[in-house]
Amino acid sequence: MVLKTKQQYVQSIKRMKSEAYMRGERIEDLTKNGLTRLALEGVGEIYELSKQPKYSSLLTRQAQGGPRISAYCSIHRSREDLVNRVRAARLICQMTGVCTASRCCGWDCLNALWYTTYEMDTRLGTVYHKRLKRYATMVQGKDLTCAGALTDPKGNRSLKPKHQPDKDVYLRVIDENKKGIVVRGAKSMIGGAIGSHEIIVQPGTGFAEAETEHAVAFAVPMNTKGVTQVVNMQPGGERKLEAGFDKGNVGFGSSESLVIFDDVFVPKERVFMNGEFEYAVDVVTKFVLLHRMVLGGCLAGCGDVLTGAAALLAEYNGLSRQLSDRLTEMTYLSEALYSQALGAAYEGQSTPSGAWFPDPLLANVTKISVTRLPYEIQKIAEDIGGGMISCMPSELDLTNPKVGPLVEKYYRGLAGVTAEKRLRVARLIESMVAGPGRLGALCMHGGGSPAAAQMTVRQLANLERKKELARRLTGVPAAS
Amino acid sequence: MVLKTKQQYVQSIKRMKSEAYMRGERIEDLTKNGLTRLALEGVGEIYELSKQPKYSSLLTRQAQGGPRISAYCSIHRSREDLVNRVRAARLICQMTGVCTASRCCGWDCLNALWYTTYEMDTRLGTVYHKRLKRYATMVQGKDLTCAGALTDPKGNRSLKPKHQPDKDVYLRVIDENKKGIVVRGAKSMIGGAIGSHEIIVQPGTGFAEAETEHAVAFAVPMNTKGVTQVVNMQPGGERKLEAGFDKGNVGFGSSESLVIFDDVFVPKERVFMNGEFEYAVDVVTKFVLLHRMVLGGCLAGCGDVLTGAAALLAEYNGLSRQLSDRLTEMTYLSEALYSQALGAAYEGQSTPSGAWFPDPLLANVTKISVTRLPYEIQKIAEDIGGGMISCMPSELDLTNPKVGPLVEKYYRGLAGVTAEKRLRVARLIESMVAGPGRLGALCMHGGGSPAAAQMTVRQLANLERKKELARRLTGVPAAS
Amino acid sequence: MVLKTKQQYVQSIKRMKSEAYMRGERIEDLTKNGLTRLALEGVGEIYELSKQPKYSSLLTRQAQGGPRISAYCSIHRSREDLVNRVRAARLICQMTGVCTASRCCGWDCLNALWYTTYEMDTRLGTVYHKRLKRYATMVQGKDLTCAGALTDPKGNRSLKPKHQPDKDVYLRVIDENKKGIVVRGAKSMIGGAIGSHEIIVQPGTGFAEAETEHAVAFAVPMNTKGVTQVVNMQPGGERKLEAGFDKGNVGFGSSESLVIFDDVFVPKERVFMNGEFEYAVDVVTKFVLLHRMVLGGCLAGCGDVLTGAAALLAEYNGLSRQLSDRLTEMTYLSEALYSQALGAAYEGQSTPSGAWFPDPLLANVTKISVTRLPYEIQKIAEDIGGGMISCMPSELDLTNPKVGPLVEKYYRGLAGVTAEKRLRVARLIESMVAGPGRLGALCMHGGGSPAAAQMTVRQLANLERKKELARRLTGVPAAS
Amino acid sequence: MVLKTKQQYVQSIKRMKSEAYMRGERIEDLTKNGLTRLALEGVGEIYELSKQPKYSSLLTRQAQGGPRISAYCSIHRSREDLVNRVRAARLICQMTGVCTASRCCGWDCLNALWYTTYEMDTRLGTVYHKRLKRYATMVQGKDLTCAGALTDPKGNRSLKPKHQPDKDVYLRVIDENKKGIVVRGAKSMIGGAIGSHEIIVQPGTGFAEAETEHAVAFAVPMNTKGVTQVVNMQPGGERKLEAGFDKGNVGFGSSESLVIFDDVFVPKERVFMNGEFEYAVDVVTKFVLLHRMVLGGCLAGCGDVLTGAAALLAEYNGLSRQLSDRLTEMTYLSEALYSQALGAAYEGQSTPSGAWFPDPLLANVTKISVTRLPYEIQKIAEDIGGGMISCMPSELDLTNPKVGPLVEKYYRGLAGVTAEKRLRVARLIESMVAGPGRLGALCMHGGGSPAAAQMTVRQLANLERKKELARRLTGVPAAS
Repeated sequence: MVLKTKQQYVQSIKRMKSEAYMRGERIEDLTKNGLTRLALEGVGEIYELSKQPKYSSLLTRQAQGGPRISAYCSIHRSREDLVNRVRAARLICQMTGVCTASRCCGWDCLNALWYTTYEMDTRLGTVYHKRLKRYATMVQGKDLTCAGALTDPKGNRSLKPKHQPDKDVYLRVIDENKKGIVVRGAKSMIGGAIGSHEIIVQPGTGFAEAETEHAVAFAVPMNTKGVTQVVNMQPGGERKLEAGFDKGNVGFGSSESLVIFDDVFVPKERVFMNGEFEYAVDVVTKFVLLHRMVLGGCLAGCGDVLTGAAALLAEYNGLSRQLSDRLTEMTYLSEALYSQALGAAYEGQSTPSGAWFPDPLLANVTKISVTRLPYEIQKIAEDIGGGMISCMPSELDLTNPKVGPLVEKYYRGLAGVTAEKRLRVARLIESMVAGPGRLGALCMHGGGSPAAAQMTVRQLANLERKKELARRLTGVPAAS
Repeated sequence: MVLKTKQQYVQSIKRMKSEAYMRGERIEDLTKNGLTRLALEGVGEIYELSKQPKYSSLLTRQAQGGPRISAYCSIHRSREDLVNRVRAARLICQMTGVCTASRCCGWDCLNALWYTTYEMDTRLGTVYHKRLKRYATMVQGKDLTCAGALTDPKGNRSLKPKHQPDKDVYLRVIDENKKGIVVRGAKSMIGGAIGSHEIIVQPGTGFAEAETEHAVAFAVPMNTKGVTQVVNMQPGGERKLEAGFDKGNVGFGSSESLVIFDDVFVPKERVFMNGEFEYAVDVVTKFVLLHRMVLGGCLAGCGDVLTGAAALLAEYNGLSRQLSDRLTEMTYLSEALYSQALGAAYEGQSTPSGAWFPDPLLANVTKISVTRLPYEIQKIAEDIGGGMISCMPSELDLTNPKVGPLVEKYYRGLAGVTAEKRLRVARLIESMVAGPGRLGALCMHGGGSPAAAQMTVRQLANLERKKELARRLTGVPAAS
Repeated sequence: MVLKTKQQYVQSIKRMKSEAYMRGERIEDLTKNGLTRLALEGVGEIYELSKQPKYSSLLTRQAQGGPRISAYCSIHRSREDLVNRVRAARLICQMTGVCTASRCCGWDCLNALWYTTYEMDTRLGTVYHKRLKRYATMVQGKDLTCAGALTDPKGNRSLKPKHQPDKDVYLRVIDENKKGIVVRGAKSMIGGAIGSHEIIVQPGTGFAEAETEHAVAFAVPMNTKGVTQVVNMQPGGERKLEAGFDKGNVGFGSSESLVIFDDVFVPKERVFMNGEFEYAVDVVTKFVLLHRMVLGGCLAGCGDVLTGAAALLAEYNGLSRQLSDRLTEMTYLSEALYSQALGAAYEGQSTPSGAWFPDPLLANVTKISVTRLPYEIQKIAEDIGGGMISCMPSELDLTNPKVGPLVEKYYRGLAGVTAEKRLRVARLIESMVAGPGRLGALCMHGGGSPAAAQMTVRQLANLERKKELARRLTGVPAAS
Repeated sequence: MVLKTKQQYVQSIKRMKSEAYMRGERIEDLTKNGLTRLALEGVGEIYELSKQPKYSSLLTRQAQGGPRISAYCSIHRSREDLVNRVRAARLICQMTGVCTASRCCGWDCLNALWYTTYEMDTRLGTVYHKRLKRYATMVQGKDLTCAGALTDPKGNRSLKPKHQPDKDVYLRVIDENKKGIVVRGAKSMIGGAIGSHEIIVQPGTGFAEAETEHAVAFAVPMNTKGVTQVVNMQPGGERKLEAGFDKGNVGFGSSESLVIFDDVFVPKERVFMNGEFEYAVDVVTKFVLLHRMVLGGCLAGCGDVLTGAAALLAEYNGLSRQLSDRLTEMTYLSEALYSQALGAAYEGQSTPSGAWFPDPLLANVTKISVTRLPYEIQKIAEDIGGGMISCMPSELDLTNPKVGPLVEKYYRGLAGVTAEKRLRVARLIESMVAGPGRLGALCMHGGGSPAAAQMTVRQLANLERKKELARRLTGVPAAS
């Protein structure tokens, strides 16, 4: 059995001592900082649930000719794998209430590179796919968590990479020798970087011939020399640094980092693309296909938690019946996201590499819905939650001898519902609407902007065929 | 080969001489009345396409131990059958631009009764399932079109059936003997009744013990004595009675009727429920599951046509580039409907009877989306279409010697785009937005009202589990 | 008293014998054609209500130094006049359920030209304003209805007027002499042209120096030689040609025409712009300001009627209580439109000419709302109306001896609610959603497209000031 | 001149030493706690701007027979006063970016009580209005800030006040003598309480005869014995406790408190209602009318700031042109809110007391829009802001010698746009979307829940008149 326990995972990350900064200071022990500890718990829950019989068939896969491995470092080899991908996303978000992006993004990178390196090897005679296979087998065997890194800082977005005054705003190869390459640059908003053993880096956009230095993909351990993280502070992130329930979700968290590559050496067996600029767009496209599909599952899962919290608060306030319509609407919205993701998964197709990918059109459609429906979910949660959401005393007030009893007296709900219960649930809603686990941070730009998804839908819309359908029904002659 | 040609279908309907009225007069020949002729063409296109190699695998099924039969009178026997059901719905709507409800509703009735009669026979020792099997085999063998009839007139909707002053407002059994039963009542809004060989009648709602007389299901030929139709006139229906293109869709149409059963005798081998009131709700539920799922395919198909028409008109006006974003949004909306329907289909399950049904929650979610997204599609089409939509001269003006040349002069678009071309396409948009093929008539109440779907979502929402998820993350103890 | 009675109005129009075509034939008597008769009733109701003490203060104005004249040919001389403009629009739409565009558009043209001619006379030394004053006094004294005509056919919309292969697709001056000018071209979608004594023509867009021939404004009687109308057929327009209630609104109607100017001579005292291309954009801007504001009142009034019809049908079906939330939403939507229009009116400003105009930003904001909210109103009406909307027998079926009694039996509602009552109300909803009085035809492109309103909002948004507000709060230094 | 300077205001509040707790500890000096200091700056800005010639005509009023007083403690005595109320709300939100609820709520309470006490004195012969006049004159003369307190904790919301196990969950009179009354209870979510000199308490709901003890209105200084505050911690509230720009809005803040009345004595000249339960609903209704109207102005102002911030970030990223449509939509949404509030103000009416109130229907319509449109504004801001919103390093990272230069390198935008500039603006957006100044906290429940506003719209909808309109157009006879 290669699967790590949660405890093994957490300790293995702690031991790596990756170089990470937060609020201007080096984090010495990731398990002692409140925010990073919660993020480790979030990813750790995947390890935990993978061991439970109830979930293991969903969260693990039978490796070809080997032991069961974590699904989170597997290659999707069937339609069912894609569907289970969506199911797993919903489950993990239900159980943690947070984005465990690291394992997801690394998973997507592995699959995207699986396809792209296969194509490169086949057409260009390179050996990237062979390298990647070895790398994937190592990752699977050690049950590692790999962050996936795409987004470059981009500087002035109206200029192409080749026209940027500082070329480093797109990560690039600055040197190369027989043993490997040296890279410089940064990747932004890297989900779960602090909880990752490895980071897989790939292009975040297509590149032109004059931009070959940027067409690079590779993987390095997170504690590689020259790799430095700055952990982002989300709204309410400060609360994660504290004990207590004001943070809303008391069990799990997430994190994102700016990951800086300050002249980092990458040995060549860990390089999976190096200058083949025509393939940059492929690896991006395949990554986002997976990611845009899977977000439908993630947001459905988060929607479930938020629906449950809203239902609970309605119950505590004695308003379950009156708010029933709105809870139903929340359910509808979550399921609409889920069914779209399932549609994209079930309609997926295989590739020559053996890896499966979702239907391109439906995956992008799912992403567009993901940038809209969760906002409706949030809004209803806020409506149901009442003025209390964003107007609550701190947990610390509950223990003050003077005001504690008064807070208790005036925040009670139905018989048996203590102030603490109501505040705990209200804080969860608050945190998912406007705090450190808010849906908006996950849904709008995860997997790319809505505009990017719309552009893909436009490309795949096949308007010519639709025009032909219209001509047929109107009696206008077909286009020649 | 049991499949009828389109021509055979049309002639077989003509020969039945079912009793149908329109605008206060008996229709003598359904193939000569413009409106009913178009409706026959609509259903006829299913016959036509089923014969084409390109579509036959989608539109026909291999009967168990027999020839290929039309999918439209088959039982869904696998997940794939459900998925193909959605695909077929989209295809037929793409190819005809209209609702061919008769074959669909009959198809759904057959499947809903397949399940329900099986349950009844198993538990009550009745012989309904045996009868239904024989009936289905007959329908398949003759490749018949069966209307499906559920909706009772209902009278005062605030009263239950048993309290209605006129009991006939819910169809009911008024007499019974050894040979069969006599029924009285009516069914409203029966799609495609005029183009059907048979009509399958089933309850449209659940019934209580005091309402057993209404718990009845049966099938009769459309030309049975005592069965009378009044064909509805939709907005713009009058245009279908005319030649020319002002009707928008010049090739195909649809129709709905009030079908009245004025003391109609039904021989007992055609009776599939007779008083088993506890099963009424089952047969309704199973019917609507199929129908609410499949509407996602239908509306996606109609959305495709409307998107194509809008794209065509944008092209004729020289505005394709400027309107590209809005066309993309139309595409997104159609695909969102489609993917939800696919999700519901793929997640479908089998029943002891062997018939498969969609996932109940996702099918109802699809229906809710169907009551919303098509309105957005329509609105964008109207935006793209410009003021011309709803402000056009009649086709007849084009041939008037005085104004014809002026209309031609002032309605031309890009070079090569005649006034007629622009008007034809604009009339198609108009008819789908506000005329005889409008999406709104199809999407809002087809398969039941949005409120009915919402009620089902509420029942299936499993709020208790969601509350448990929320409790887990907040540290509030689990409910005992 | 200069005000005409409704009867005098109708007869005066009949006597003009303007040249109008419909469905390929000349209309000999506008009072005998069902559609045009209803349109005359619509505008006629303004005449009717203006005489009623209850409404006369709203619908008439005290002319300067003269008798009370119709508001519909007055110049707005105060903030209160603008507010009353919105109130009158709502009232007339409430009382007629239709767009009485002719009097409104002519009113707007008079005001737009009042401003623009004043500016031209002041700056260029022309005499257009003096001419217009005389013209306005004549119109007021005779209580005439003036159509207002802006929209050119435009041909290929991607080309500017000067590049059109057929220059006539923008109306233009083709000849000129001491006595006047000769114009050729057409104006599209002219609301109420058949019920107008006069037609006021003005540019529908700005023009460049090379396009001076198109910068022309003038007025002619509708029966001027060379002026020909082709009356448009809206969806369901055919029903207006018939007796009976299937048309929904049995009392009133509207109409739109393509008005063709086939080398029409205009005497110079009726020419209000002739080549002053720099002023074309002014007269368009001022027209649309009024129109975009007033649509908020119109759609609120139509919304009121549709809300009332939906409430009535809910009552007939015994569902008033259950549908109360949705009726409230309809009310909200109508009032939101109304309050925006009021905001634009109250914030209006005077001009040197003495004419008042609405706040430019708020008038355009109102228009954007007008392209959105009425669709929500329609959708709810369709939801409340039930499947019956678009699935009804014809009125003619009620009188057929065979099926009439059956239709009566099965379409009854609550006690005392006959089938006819239900059908009449359902047909009204149907016609306002999808038929000859539908809101969509009025709201999307009336007063220009949503894109045009958005462009104006963009121009007026003053983003620089807003950026300054943001800088101030963030501590980022102000832009130098 | 009675107007205080900002400095005088801040010092006067500091000197009061009101008893306030935050995060479990007593706040010793409100000017030293980061959060409360910012809140004082927010309200203080009203004092500041009132002194500036540019704004004084808007923010001050001429007292009857006296000096200019702050508008924020005046009685609305004309339509223009109501309109200026809306304008002032927009201005203050533009200039501060936050809710300065204290002065607004107190202002509304004064006006609501002005009307209600007048009615009581007139009908019941009480002396409340005389007392209130003296109180108002005192407040105006000293230029005091008064919090307004309505919302009771409510306990189990499904029970009426008289059935609550703990009667104190609705504030009530527990004792009374010749000198005054003693009250017990609490008021929740009291905006700006820490920055107020006085607190005006009034019923938050109607009461029945058996609930007279709750029908009480009065005012006390915030530092009255027995009055204790617990200051709420909003999402991101912790950041306000820190220096630096991570809080987004660096100049201004807001605060809300639970205000507890632990057996507080109120002298009778400060009691404005005491048991007159029939008048409780009046004072609530009048309060919310003002509040629901004015929120349209507030949210428009906050929308302006957010639009400006989004425009600024778009500019820094080199994307102004591409994002122009979305910025226009933000502008539309803000102006739609503003115009609705203006409509409600302009349509306001006077009362016998001399106080003016907005149109009841339009004020509630504005509130409904306020619960919807700001969410759209937020969503677009988040879309424009990009993934950076919610994924930013802390300001503290900028000064770390190791990572500071790297953060600077990788967060730069266009030439001249430093990382700090981009981060400052992005933090402002973040805080308004999801942090301590977020729109959602202000718009959803401020002035009551959306459901409360909808209930009022239902009551005022006058469906009977609308039904009559519909009957008239259908030919259905009028109701007798």
